[in-house]
Amino acid sequence: MIRVVIIGSGNVAQHLISAFLQSTETQIVQVYARQKKALEKYSGSFEITDDLKDLAEADIYIISVSDDAIATVSKELPFQDRLVVHTSGSVSMDALSSNRKGVFYPLQTFSKSKIVDFKTIPICLESNSPKDFELLEKVARSISEAIYKIDSQQRRALHVAAVFVNNFTNHLYKIGSDICTANQIPFEILQPLIQETAQKIMTLTPVEAQTGPAIRHDSNTIKAHLEFLSDQNQKNIYTILTQSIQNGEKL
Amino acid sequence: MIRVVIIGSGNVAQHLISAFLQSTETQIVQVYARQKKALEKYSGSFEITDDLKDLAEADIYIISVSDDAIATVSKELPFQDRLVVHTSGSVSMDALSSNRKGVFYPLQTFSKSKIVDFKTIPICLESNSPKDFELLEKVARSISEAIYKIDSQQRRALHVAAVFVNNFTNHLYKIGSDICTANQIPFEILQPLIQETAQKIMTLTPVEAQTGPAIRHDSNTIKAHLEFLSDQNQKNIYTILTQSIQNGEKL
Repeated sequence: MIRVVIIGSGNVAQHLISAFLQSTETQIVQVYARQKKALEKYSGSFEITDDLKDLAEADIYIISVSDDAIATVSKELPFQDRLVVHTSGSVSMDALSSNRKGVFYPLQTFSKSKIVDFKTIPICLESNSPKDFELLEKVARSISEAIYKIDSQQRRALHVAAVFVNNFTNHLYKIGSDICTANQIPFEILQPLIQETAQKIMTLTPVEAQTGPAIRHDSNTIKAHLEFLSDQNQKNIYTILTQSIQNGEKL
Repeated sequence: MIRVVIIGSGNVAQHLISAFLQSTETQIVQVYARQKKALEKYSGSFEITDDLKDLAEADIYIISVSDDAIATVSKELPFQDRLVVHTSGSVSMDALSSNRKGVFYPLQTFSKSKIVDFKTIPICLESNSPKDFELLEKVARSISEAIYKIDSQQRRALHVAAVFVNNFTNHLYKIGSDICTANQIPFEILQPLIQETAQKIMTLTPVEAQTGPAIRHDSNTIKAHLEFLSDQNQKNIYTILTQSIQNGEKL
Protein backbone atom coordinates (compact mmCIF):
# COMPACT_ATOMS: atom_id res chain seq x y z
CA MET A 1 0.00 0.00 0.00
CA ILE A 2 1.29 3.42 -0.92
CA ARG A 3 0.79 5.79 2.00
CA VAL A 4 -0.66 9.17 1.03
CA VAL A 5 -1.03 12.37 3.05
CA ILE A 6 -3.32 15.04 1.60
CA ILE A 7 -2.65 18.64 2.62
CA GLY A 8 -5.77 20.72 2.07
CA SER A 9 -9.53 20.35 2.36
CA GLY A 10 -10.89 22.37 -0.56
CA ASN A 11 -12.74 21.29 -3.66
CA VAL A 12 -9.93 19.45 -5.46
CA ALA A 13 -8.60 17.98 -2.19
CA GLN A 14 -12.01 16.48 -1.38
CA HIS A 15 -12.43 14.97 -4.85
CA LEU A 16 -8.95 13.42 -4.50
CA ILE A 17 -9.78 12.11 -1.03
CA SER A 18 -12.93 10.43 -2.33
CA ALA A 19 -11.02 8.86 -5.21
CA PHE A 20 -8.17 7.57 -3.01
CA LEU A 21 -10.62 6.15 -0.48
CA GLN A 22 -11.90 3.87 -3.26
CA SER A 23 -8.45 2.77 -4.36
CA THR A 24 -7.02 -0.54 -3.15
CA GLU A 25 -3.41 0.39 -3.90
CA THR A 26 -3.17 3.59 -1.92
CA GLN A 27 -4.08 4.46 1.63
CA ILE A 28 -4.80 7.92 2.99
CA VAL A 29 -2.98 7.88 6.31
CA GLN A 30 -3.71 11.51 7.18
CA VAL A 31 -5.29 14.72 5.92
CA TYR A 32 -4.21 18.19 7.00
CA ALA A 33 -6.94 20.85 7.22
CA ARG A 34 -6.71 24.23 8.88
CA GLN A 35 -10.28 23.65 9.98
CA LYS A 36 -10.98 20.01 10.77
CA LYS A 37 -14.71 20.66 10.40
CA ALA A 38 -14.38 20.75 6.60
CA LEU A 39 -13.69 17.02 6.66
CA GLU A 40 -16.47 15.96 9.04
CA LYS A 41 -18.15 13.78 6.44
CA TYR A 42 -15.08 11.51 6.23
CA SER A 43 -15.10 10.95 9.98
CA GLY A 44 -13.19 7.78 10.89
CA SER A 45 -11.75 7.16 7.42
CA PHE A 46 -8.36 8.67 8.28
CA GLU A 47 -6.54 10.79 10.82
CA ILE A 48 -7.06 14.55 10.56
CA THR A 49 -4.57 17.14 11.79
CA ASP A 50 -4.56 20.92 11.81
CA ASP A 51 -0.85 21.18 12.60
CA LEU A 52 1.76 20.76 9.87
CA LYS A 53 4.32 19.78 12.52
CA ASP A 54 2.27 16.67 13.27
CA LEU A 55 2.28 15.27 9.74
CA ALA A 56 2.38 11.47 9.66
CA GLU A 57 5.03 9.40 7.86
CA ALA A 58 3.98 8.70 4.25
CA ASP A 59 5.31 7.89 0.77
CA ILE A 60 3.83 11.00 -0.82
CA TYR A 61 2.47 14.36 0.36
CA ILE A 62 -0.09 15.94 -1.95
CA ILE A 63 -0.51 19.68 -1.40
CA SER A 64 -3.94 20.68 -2.68
CA VAL A 65 -4.42 24.27 -1.54
CA SER A 66 -4.99 27.55 -3.38
CA ASP A 67 -2.24 28.50 -5.85
CA ASP A 68 -1.03 31.41 -3.70
CA ALA A 69 -0.57 29.22 -0.63
CA ILE A 70 1.44 26.38 -2.22
CA ALA A 71 4.92 27.89 -1.69
CA THR A 72 4.16 28.94 1.90
CA VAL A 73 2.72 25.57 2.93
CA SER A 74 5.62 23.80 1.24
CA LYS A 75 8.15 25.81 3.28
CA GLU A 76 6.43 24.90 6.54
CA LEU A 77 6.73 21.16 6.02
CA PRO A 78 8.99 19.68 8.74
CA PHE A 79 11.03 17.54 6.33
CA GLN A 80 13.13 17.91 3.17
CA ASP A 81 13.62 14.42 1.79
CA ARG A 82 10.12 13.12 1.27
CA LEU A 83 8.19 13.36 -2.01
CA VAL A 84 5.98 16.47 -2.07
CA VAL A 85 3.71 17.34 -5.01
CA HIS A 86 1.08 19.98 -5.72
CA THR A 87 -2.11 19.72 -7.80
CA SER A 88 -2.10 23.08 -9.58
CA GLY A 89 -2.25 23.72 -13.31
CA SER A 90 -0.60 27.11 -13.11
CA VAL A 91 2.10 26.88 -10.44
CA SER A 92 5.62 25.76 -11.33
CA MET A 93 7.04 22.62 -9.74
CA ASP A 94 9.84 24.76 -8.37
CA ALA A 95 7.46 26.56 -6.04
CA LEU A 96 7.94 23.49 -3.85
CA SER A 97 10.93 23.70 -1.51
CA SER A 98 11.54 20.03 -0.72
CA ASN A 99 14.34 18.11 -2.46
CA ARG A 100 12.00 15.49 -3.89
CA LYS A 101 9.13 17.15 -5.71
CA GLY A 102 6.58 16.84 -8.44
CA VAL A 103 3.19 17.84 -9.83
CA PHE A 104 -0.03 15.83 -9.76
CA TYR A 105 -2.49 17.95 -11.79
CA PRO A 106 -5.94 16.50 -12.49
CA LEU A 107 -7.28 18.32 -15.56
CA GLN A 108 -10.96 18.69 -14.83
CA THR A 109 -13.49 21.20 -13.53
CA PHE A 110 -14.64 20.21 -10.08
CA SER A 111 -17.88 21.33 -8.45
CA LYS A 112 -18.50 20.64 -4.77
CA SER A 113 -21.94 19.23 -5.50
CA LYS A 114 -21.21 17.09 -8.53
CA ILE A 115 -19.63 13.64 -8.29
CA VAL A 116 -17.07 12.91 -11.00
CA ASP A 117 -15.74 9.62 -12.27
CA PHE A 118 -12.05 10.00 -11.57
CA LYS A 119 -11.13 7.04 -13.82
CA THR A 120 -11.52 9.18 -16.94
CA ILE A 121 -9.87 12.33 -15.61
CA PRO A 122 -6.46 13.04 -17.16
CA ILE A 123 -3.76 13.39 -14.53
CA CYS A 124 -0.70 15.36 -15.63
CA LEU A 125 2.47 14.27 -13.89
CA GLU A 126 5.90 15.82 -13.48
CA SER A 127 8.81 15.10 -11.14
CA ASN A 128 12.43 16.09 -10.71
CA SER A 129 13.54 12.44 -10.49
CA PRO A 130 12.71 9.42 -12.67
CA LYS A 131 12.26 7.23 -9.60
CA ASP A 132 9.76 9.59 -8.02
CA PHE A 133 7.99 9.85 -11.37
CA GLU A 134 7.46 6.09 -11.24
CA LEU A 135 5.95 6.38 -7.77
CA LEU A 136 3.74 9.27 -8.91
CA GLU A 137 2.59 7.18 -11.85
CA LYS A 138 1.58 4.32 -9.53
CA VAL A 139 -0.36 6.72 -7.33
CA ALA A 140 -2.10 8.27 -10.35
CA ARG A 141 -2.94 4.89 -11.90
CA SER A 142 -4.63 3.85 -8.67
CA ILE A 143 -7.40 6.37 -9.35
CA SER A 144 -7.31 7.16 -13.11
CA GLU A 145 -6.76 5.45 -16.44
CA ALA A 146 -5.58 8.63 -18.20
CA ILE A 147 -2.03 9.48 -17.16
CA TYR A 148 0.16 11.97 -19.02
CA LYS A 149 3.76 13.12 -18.58
CA ILE A 150 3.53 16.89 -18.86
CA ASP A 151 6.40 19.27 -18.05
CA SER A 152 5.94 22.70 -16.43
CA GLN A 153 5.95 24.57 -19.76
CA GLN A 154 3.35 22.20 -21.25
CA ARG A 155 1.27 22.43 -18.11
CA ARG A 156 1.21 26.21 -18.44
CA ALA A 157 -0.02 25.78 -22.04
CA LEU A 158 -2.63 23.24 -20.95
CA HIS A 159 -3.93 25.54 -18.25
CA VAL A 160 -4.41 28.35 -20.77
CA ALA A 161 -6.09 25.92 -23.21
CA ALA A 162 -8.36 24.76 -20.39
CA VAL A 163 -9.40 28.37 -19.73
CA PHE A 164 -10.51 28.64 -23.38
CA VAL A 165 -12.44 25.35 -23.57
CA ASN A 166 -13.91 25.52 -20.07
CA ASN A 167 -14.11 29.03 -18.54
CA PHE A 168 -14.70 30.87 -21.80
CA THR A 169 -17.03 28.24 -23.25
CA ASN A 170 -19.13 28.43 -20.10
CA HIS A 171 -19.27 32.19 -20.54
CA LEU A 172 -20.61 31.71 -24.09
CA TYR A 173 -23.32 29.51 -22.53
CA LYS A 174 -24.09 32.45 -20.24
CA ILE A 175 -24.46 34.82 -23.19
CA GLY A 176 -26.74 32.29 -24.89
CA SER A 177 -28.75 32.08 -21.69
CA ASP A 178 -28.92 35.89 -21.39
CA ILE A 179 -30.22 36.19 -24.98
CA CYS A 180 -32.87 33.54 -24.25
CA THR A 181 -34.00 35.25 -21.06
CA ALA A 182 -34.26 38.63 -22.78
CA ASN A 183 -36.56 37.05 -25.37
CA GLN A 184 -38.73 34.88 -23.09
CA ILE A 185 -37.22 31.66 -24.38
CA PRO A 186 -36.40 28.81 -21.96
CA PHE A 187 -32.63 28.14 -21.89
CA GLU A 188 -33.33 24.37 -21.96
CA ILE A 189 -34.07 24.70 -25.67
CA LEU A 190 -30.30 25.21 -26.25
CA GLN A 191 -29.27 22.17 -24.18
CA PRO A 192 -29.31 19.52 -26.95
CA LEU A 193 -27.25 21.84 -29.16
CA ILE A 194 -24.71 22.46 -26.38
CA GLN A 195 -24.35 18.73 -25.70
CA GLU A 196 -24.05 17.84 -29.40
CA THR A 197 -21.45 20.59 -29.93
CA ALA A 198 -19.27 19.00 -27.24
CA GLN A 199 -19.90 15.45 -28.42
CA LYS A 200 -19.07 16.22 -32.06
CA ILE A 201 -15.53 17.01 -30.99
CA MET A 202 -15.05 13.39 -29.88
CA THR A 203 -15.10 12.23 -33.51
CA LEU A 204 -14.39 15.36 -35.58
CA THR A 205 -11.56 17.89 -35.30
CA PRO A 206 -12.71 21.43 -34.36
CA VAL A 207 -11.95 22.53 -37.93
CA GLU A 208 -14.14 19.76 -39.38
CA ALA A 209 -16.92 20.50 -36.88
CA GLN A 210 -17.06 24.25 -37.57
CA THR A 211 -20.40 25.41 -39.02
CA GLY A 212 -22.32 28.69 -39.07
CA PRO A 213 -22.39 32.06 -40.81
CA ALA A 214 -18.75 32.98 -40.04
CA ILE A 215 -17.18 29.96 -41.73
CA ARG A 216 -19.71 30.19 -44.59
CA HIS A 217 -18.79 33.90 -44.99
CA ASP A 218 -22.54 34.54 -44.93
CA SER A 219 -22.26 38.30 -44.54
CA ASN A 220 -26.03 38.92 -44.65
CA THR A 221 -26.65 36.71 -41.63
CA ILE A 222 -23.65 38.15 -39.77
CA LYS A 223 -24.94 41.67 -40.43
CA ALA A 224 -28.45 40.72 -39.27
CA HIS A 225 -27.05 39.15 -36.08
CA LEU A 226 -24.99 42.25 -35.28
CA GLU A 227 -28.05 44.43 -35.85
CA PHE A 228 -30.07 42.15 -33.58
CA LEU A 229 -27.59 42.38 -30.70
CA SER A 230 -28.16 45.54 -28.68
CA ASP A 231 -25.53 44.82 -26.02
CA GLN A 232 -22.19 46.36 -27.07
CA ASN A 233 -20.19 43.72 -25.22
CA GLN A 234 -22.04 40.90 -27.01
CA LYS A 235 -21.52 42.70 -30.33
CA ASN A 236 -17.76 42.94 -29.67
CA ILE A 237 -17.48 39.26 -28.78
CA TYR A 238 -19.54 38.30 -31.85
CA THR A 239 -17.25 40.37 -34.08
CA ILE A 240 -13.92 39.20 -32.70
CA LEU A 241 -14.90 35.51 -32.75
CA THR A 242 -16.38 35.75 -36.26
CA GLN A 243 -13.12 37.31 -37.51
CA SER A 244 -11.08 34.70 -35.69
CA ILE A 245 -13.05 31.86 -37.32
CA GLN A 246 -12.54 33.44 -40.74
CA ASN A 247 -8.82 34.11 -40.17
CA GLY A 248 -8.28 30.59 -38.86
CA GLU A 249 -9.20 29.16 -42.24
CA LYS A 250 -6.20 30.72 -43.91
CA LEU A 251 -3.68 28.89 -41.74
CA MET B 1 -51.36 9.50 -42.12
CA ILE B 2 -50.18 13.05 -42.66
CA ARG B 3 -48.74 13.37 -46.16
CA VAL B 4 -45.42 15.24 -46.29
CA VAL B 5 -43.44 16.55 -49.26
CA ILE B 6 -39.83 17.57 -48.59
CA ILE B 7 -38.30 20.15 -50.90
CA GLY B 8 -34.52 19.94 -50.75
CA SER B 9 -31.84 17.27 -50.42
CA GLY B 10 -29.16 18.93 -48.28
CA ASN B 11 -27.95 18.12 -44.80
CA VAL B 12 -31.03 19.16 -42.82
CA ALA B 13 -33.41 17.76 -45.48
CA GLN B 14 -31.75 14.36 -45.28
CA HIS B 15 -31.89 14.27 -41.48
CA LEU B 16 -35.60 15.16 -41.67
CA ILE B 17 -36.21 12.48 -44.30
CA SER B 18 -34.57 9.84 -42.11
CA ALA B 19 -36.66 10.92 -39.12
CA PHE B 20 -39.97 10.97 -41.04
CA LEU B 21 -39.25 7.55 -42.58
CA GLN B 22 -39.26 6.15 -39.02
CA SER B 23 -42.50 7.87 -38.05
CA THR B 24 -45.77 5.96 -38.14
CA GLU B 25 -47.93 9.10 -38.24
CA THR B 26 -46.43 10.82 -41.26
CA GLN B 27 -45.68 9.61 -44.74
CA ILE B 28 -43.17 11.13 -47.14
CA VAL B 29 -45.07 11.04 -50.43
CA GLN B 30 -42.40 12.84 -52.44
CA VAL B 31 -39.04 14.61 -52.23
CA TYR B 32 -37.91 17.35 -54.60
CA ALA B 33 -34.22 17.49 -55.43
CA ARG B 34 -32.53 19.44 -58.19
CA GLN B 35 -30.22 16.47 -58.57
CA LYS B 36 -32.00 13.17 -57.93
CA LYS B 37 -28.63 11.49 -57.34
CA ALA B 38 -28.34 13.12 -53.89
CA LEU B 39 -31.17 10.85 -52.69
CA GLU B 40 -29.95 7.58 -54.17
CA LYS B 41 -29.61 5.93 -50.79
CA TYR B 42 -33.36 6.27 -50.16
CA SER B 43 -34.17 4.52 -53.44
CA GLY B 44 -37.72 3.12 -53.38
CA SER B 45 -38.79 4.79 -50.12
CA PHE B 46 -40.64 7.64 -51.86
CA GLU B 47 -41.08 9.33 -55.21
CA ILE B 48 -38.36 11.78 -56.24
CA THR B 49 -38.92 14.68 -58.62
CA ASP B 50 -36.61 17.35 -60.00
CA ASP B 51 -39.47 19.52 -61.28
CA LEU B 52 -41.40 21.78 -58.89
CA LYS B 53 -44.37 21.71 -61.33
CA ASP B 54 -44.75 17.99 -60.66
CA LEU B 55 -45.17 18.27 -56.89
CA ALA B 56 -47.55 15.66 -55.47
CA GLU B 57 -50.63 16.46 -53.40
CA ALA B 58 -49.76 16.59 -49.68
CA ASP B 59 -50.83 18.06 -46.32
CA ILE B 60 -47.59 19.93 -45.77
CA TYR B 61 -44.63 21.04 -47.90
CA ILE B 62 -41.36 21.44 -46.02
CA ILE B 63 -38.82 23.64 -47.82
CA SER B 64 -35.35 22.71 -46.57
CA VAL B 65 -32.97 24.57 -48.85
CA SER B 66 -30.28 27.20 -48.24
CA ASP B 67 -31.52 30.43 -46.64
CA ASP B 68 -30.99 32.46 -49.81
CA ALA B 69 -33.09 30.08 -51.93
CA ILE B 70 -36.19 29.87 -49.69
CA ALA B 71 -38.06 32.85 -51.15
CA THR B 72 -37.29 31.88 -54.74
CA VAL B 73 -38.34 28.24 -54.31
CA SER B 74 -41.47 29.35 -52.48
CA LYS B 75 -42.50 31.61 -55.38
CA GLU B 76 -42.11 28.76 -57.86
CA LEU B 77 -44.56 26.46 -56.09
CA PRO B 78 -47.59 25.82 -58.36
CA PHE B 79 -50.19 26.41 -55.60
CA GLN B 80 -51.17 29.07 -53.06
CA ASP B 81 -53.51 27.37 -50.60
CA ARG B 82 -51.49 24.50 -49.23
CA LEU B 83 -49.41 24.66 -46.05
CA VAL B 84 -45.78 25.54 -46.84
CA VAL B 85 -43.08 25.82 -44.16
CA HIS B 86 -39.32 26.33 -44.12
CA THR B 87 -36.72 24.96 -41.71
CA SER B 88 -34.45 27.97 -41.27
CA GLY B 89 -33.45 29.66 -38.03
CA SER B 90 -32.72 33.00 -39.61
CA VAL B 91 -35.34 33.54 -42.34
CA SER B 92 -38.64 35.20 -41.56
CA MET B 93 -41.88 33.27 -42.07
CA ASP B 94 -42.95 36.03 -44.46
CA ALA B 95 -40.29 35.02 -46.95
CA LEU B 96 -42.83 32.35 -47.94
CA SER B 97 -45.33 33.49 -50.54
CA SER B 98 -48.17 30.98 -50.04
CA ASN B 99 -51.29 31.94 -48.10
CA ARG B 100 -50.85 29.17 -45.55
CA LYS B 101 -47.36 29.25 -44.12
CA GLY B 102 -45.18 28.43 -41.16
CA VAL B 103 -41.75 27.58 -39.81
CA PHE B 104 -40.45 24.17 -38.77
CA TYR B 105 -36.98 24.89 -37.34
CA PRO B 106 -35.04 22.01 -35.76
CA LEU B 107 -32.49 23.59 -33.40
CA GLN B 108 -29.47 21.34 -33.76
CA THR B 109 -26.12 21.13 -35.53
CA PHE B 110 -26.28 18.50 -38.24
CA SER B 111 -23.28 16.74 -39.75
CA LYS B 112 -23.70 14.54 -42.81
CA SER B 113 -21.73 11.73 -41.22
CA LYS B 114 -23.23 11.72 -37.74
CA ILE B 115 -26.60 10.16 -36.94
CA VAL B 116 -28.69 12.16 -34.47
CA ASP B 117 -31.57 11.08 -32.28
CA PHE B 118 -34.34 13.35 -33.52
CA LYS B 119 -36.56 12.63 -30.50
CA THR B 120 -34.55 15.01 -28.33
CA ILE B 121 -34.09 17.77 -30.91
CA PRO B 122 -36.13 20.91 -30.13
CA ILE B 123 -38.38 21.85 -33.03
CA CYS B 124 -39.44 25.51 -33.09
CA LEU B 125 -42.83 26.04 -34.70
CA GLU B 126 -44.62 29.10 -36.05
CA SER B 127 -47.63 29.52 -38.31
CA ASN B 128 -49.93 32.30 -39.50
CA SER B 129 -53.04 30.30 -38.53
CA PRO B 130 -53.95 28.43 -35.32
CA LYS B 131 -55.33 25.51 -37.34
CA ASP B 132 -52.14 25.08 -39.35
CA PHE B 133 -50.15 25.40 -36.13
CA GLU B 134 -52.05 22.35 -34.84
CA LEU B 135 -51.14 20.41 -37.96
CA LEU B 136 -47.50 21.52 -37.66
CA GLU B 137 -47.48 20.37 -34.07
CA LYS B 138 -48.73 16.90 -35.06
CA VAL B 139 -46.05 16.64 -37.72
CA ALA B 140 -43.35 17.76 -35.27
CA ARG B 141 -44.54 15.39 -32.52
CA SER B 142 -44.29 12.49 -34.93
CA ILE B 143 -40.48 12.83 -34.85
CA SER B 144 -39.59 14.78 -31.68
CA GLU B 145 -40.60 15.09 -28.05
CA ALA B 146 -39.35 18.68 -27.69
CA ILE B 147 -41.77 21.08 -29.40
CA TYR B 148 -41.72 24.85 -28.84
CA LYS B 149 -43.91 27.68 -30.10
CA ILE B 150 -41.40 30.34 -31.18
CA ASP B 151 -42.31 33.46 -33.13
CA SER B 152 -40.06 35.03 -35.78
CA GLN B 153 -38.50 37.56 -33.38
CA GLN B 154 -37.73 34.83 -30.83
CA ARG B 155 -36.36 32.59 -33.57
CA ARG B 156 -33.96 35.36 -34.60
CA ALA B 157 -32.78 35.59 -30.97
CA LEU B 158 -32.42 31.82 -30.74
CA HIS B 159 -30.37 31.69 -33.90
CA VAL B 160 -27.95 34.28 -32.50
CA ALA B 161 -27.79 32.41 -29.17
CA ALA B 162 -27.08 29.20 -31.10
CA VAL B 163 -24.15 30.89 -32.85
CA PHE B 164 -22.66 31.71 -29.43
CA VAL B 165 -23.13 28.28 -27.84
CA ASN B 166 -22.33 26.25 -30.96
CA ASN B 167 -20.21 28.06 -33.60
CA PHE B 168 -18.22 30.18 -31.15
CA THR B 169 -17.81 27.41 -28.58
CA ASN B 170 -16.46 25.15 -31.31
CA HIS B 171 -13.99 27.88 -32.22
CA LEU B 172 -12.79 27.99 -28.59
CA TYR B 173 -12.21 24.23 -28.90
CA LYS B 174 -10.10 25.02 -31.97
CA ILE B 175 -8.00 27.53 -30.04
CA GLY B 176 -7.54 24.95 -27.27
CA SER B 177 -6.49 22.43 -29.90
CA ASP B 178 -4.06 24.92 -31.50
CA ILE B 179 -2.42 25.63 -28.13
CA CYS B 180 -2.05 21.88 -27.51
CA THR B 181 -0.52 21.28 -30.94
CA ALA B 182 1.96 24.13 -30.49
CA ASN B 183 3.13 22.53 -27.24
CA GLN B 184 3.23 18.86 -28.30
CA ILE B 185 0.23 17.95 -26.17
CA PRO B 186 -2.45 15.55 -27.51
CA PHE B 187 -5.83 17.35 -27.82
CA GLU B 188 -7.56 14.28 -26.32
CA ILE B 189 -6.31 15.40 -22.91
CA LEU B 190 -8.88 18.24 -23.05
CA GLN B 191 -11.80 15.98 -24.01
CA PRO B 192 -13.04 15.07 -20.51
CA LEU B 193 -12.95 18.75 -19.55
CA ILE B 194 -14.92 19.74 -22.67
CA GLN B 195 -17.56 17.07 -22.02
CA GLU B 196 -17.88 17.94 -18.32
CA THR B 197 -18.16 21.66 -19.13
CA ALA B 198 -21.18 20.90 -21.33
CA GLN B 199 -22.71 18.43 -18.90
CA LYS B 200 -22.42 20.75 -15.92
CA ILE B 201 -24.85 23.09 -17.62
CA MET B 202 -27.58 20.42 -17.42
CA THR B 203 -27.79 20.87 -13.64
CA LEU B 204 -26.18 24.26 -12.93
CA THR B 205 -26.87 27.68 -14.46
CA PRO B 206 -23.93 29.14 -16.43
CA VAL B 207 -23.41 31.66 -13.61
CA GLU B 208 -23.20 28.88 -11.01
CA ALA B 209 -20.89 26.83 -13.23
CA GLN B 210 -18.41 29.65 -13.90
CA THR B 211 -14.91 28.96 -12.55
CA GLY B 212 -11.40 30.13 -13.41
CA PRO B 213 -9.06 33.09 -13.00
CA ALA B 214 -11.45 35.69 -14.48
CA ILE B 215 -14.32 35.11 -12.03
CA ARG B 216 -11.82 34.76 -9.16
CA HIS B 217 -10.23 38.07 -10.23
CA ASP B 218 -6.91 36.24 -10.03
CA SER B 219 -4.89 38.94 -11.77
CA ASN B 220 -1.55 37.13 -11.40
CA THR B 221 -2.79 34.11 -13.34
CA ILE B 222 -4.50 36.30 -15.96
CA LYS B 223 -1.27 38.24 -16.44
CA ALA B 224 0.76 35.02 -16.72
CA HIS B 225 -1.69 33.63 -19.30
CA LEU B 226 -1.51 36.78 -21.41
CA GLU B 227 2.29 36.67 -21.26
CA PHE B 228 2.20 33.02 -22.29
CA LEU B 229 0.02 33.67 -25.36
CA SER B 230 2.15 34.83 -28.29
CA ASP B 231 -0.70 34.98 -30.83
CA GLN B 232 -2.23 38.48 -30.82
CA ASN B 233 -5.66 37.16 -31.85
CA GLN B 234 -5.70 34.67 -28.96
CA LYS B 235 -4.59 37.44 -26.59
CA ASN B 236 -7.47 39.67 -27.75
CA ILE B 237 -10.04 36.91 -27.31
CA TYR B 238 -8.62 36.07 -23.86
CA THR B 239 -8.85 39.72 -22.82
CA ILE B 240 -12.37 40.42 -24.10
CA LEU B 241 -13.84 37.23 -22.62
CA THR B 242 -12.09 37.75 -19.28
CA GLN B 243 -13.53 41.29 -19.08
CA SER B 244 -16.96 40.04 -20.09
CA ILE B 245 -16.94 37.40 -17.33
CA GLN B 246 -15.93 40.05 -14.79
CA ASN B 247 -18.51 42.58 -16.03
CA GLY B 248 -21.25 39.95 -16.04
CA GLU B 249 -20.97 39.60 -12.29
CA LYS B 250 -22.13 43.13 -11.71
CA LEU B 251 -25.49 42.58 -13.36
